Amino acid sequence: MPIVEVTIVPVGTGTTSLSRYVADMQNLLEQAREPIHYQLTPMSTIIEGELTDLLEVVRRLHESPFVQGADRVCTTIKIDDRRDRPSSMEQKMKSVADRLQSST
Amino acid sequence: MPIVEVTIVPVGTGTTSLSRYVADMQNLLEQAREPIHYQLTPMSTIIEGELTDLLEVVRRLHESPFVQGADRVCTTIKIDDRRDRPSSMEQKMKSVADRLQSST
Amino acid sequence: MPIVEVTIVPVGTGTTSLSRYVADMQNLLEQAREPIHYQLTPMSTIIEGELTDLLEVVRRLHESPFVQGADRVCTTIKIDDRRDRPSSMEQKMKSVADRLQSST
Amino acid sequence: MPIVEVTIVPVGTGTTSLSRYVADMQNLLEQAREPIHYQLTPMSTIIEGELTDLLEVVRRLHESPFVQGADRVCTTIKIDDRRDRPSSMEQKMKSVADRLQSST
Repeated sequence: MPIVEVTIVPVGTGTTSLSRYVADMQNLLEQAREPIHYQLTPMSTIIEGELTDLLEVVRRLHESPFVQGADRVCTTIKIDDRRDRPSSMEQKMKSVADRLQSST
Repeated sequence: MPIVEVTIVPVGTGTTSLSRYVADMQNLLEQAREPIHYQLTPMSTIIEGELTDLLEVVRRLHESPFVQGADRVCTTIKIDDRRDRPSSMEQKMKSVADRLQSST
Repeated sequence: MPIVEVTIVPVGTGTTSLSRYVADMQNLLEQAREPIHYQLTPMSTIIEGELTDLLEVVRRLHESPFVQGADRVCTTIKIDDRRDRPSSMEQKMKSVADRLQSST
Repeated sequence: MPIVEVTIVPVGTGTTSLSRYVADMQNLLEQAREPIHYQLTPMSTIIEGELTDLLEVVRRLHESPFVQGADRVCTTIKIDDRRDRPSSMEQKMKSVADRLQSST
């Protein structure tokens, strides 16, 4: 399953605070009907699921600051899509932890 | 109209050359039935059109290295979506050129 | 203090696995003499510190796959730099959690 | 020589227009004492040169909206660094054009 990292920055809102928009995105993700997993980091939101679902969810996340009144939104997305073996947020973290342990 | 910048990097292909994949993307864009404009830069492909069309085109571009045999693809996307006035690749370049001219 | 998110993808290595490179980056960060904090996510490494330190650390992280034999490296970096009030990875997470709590 | 793509978004400025900031960046690049090449695209600025020079130039570009009064700046950077053969913005464009021509 592909993993998507998304960061959404509204432009011209007059405030440097973005937590309101990030909280909105978390609410949207919690209510998503698509079978996705998600995780908030200090810089992005990471979502895991089927690619078509992920792109639809990203589209809704990108729309959310406009609903709050923003007139311009800059969104950055990274897709990591591995198809030779199962992949997940959890598996990726575990692979690195295993490497670190075996090297000590 | 939103503008999307996309960079697609296949991982584990055994070759450092990416031009084959970029050429494929250009062919896909040329044949796209969606009403989009696009432009190649040395680092990305920029596409302009309706958001739903752009995300569908990005999905196909992201699939193209898999068709060529890649097993993992890392795709980076930036969306610039301005809704308080018409925006386009051409308009954005002109705005900067106007600023530069008026400041000399 | 600015916060930097960095993702490093070696190209043409012949393997779809990246965990070896990520583990290397974690070792580099652990040994960094600069006063930085860092955190691994499933998609990136996030680093917090002074901007000059962060860029120097990013430079070393970007070099690390070359040391392991890679011939091409694609690195993506996001800088979030807020100067009107103290900012940190921890503070950003707390701001969103506070918003989510107050809206329920 | 590595090639760097940089996009700088000031947050909370109260205006959706970014051309003023992009024009500033162009002026900074024109006056740079480092031996770099640069090119503006509708979504980014692309710079080519030695990695240490590029990171120093990126640092100055990232500072420029703060000089204009911004209190928060989100900067996105992509580094494409190929070391098995000479690379440049021009060469990358030519490689793709050659591929497209040979496939017709």
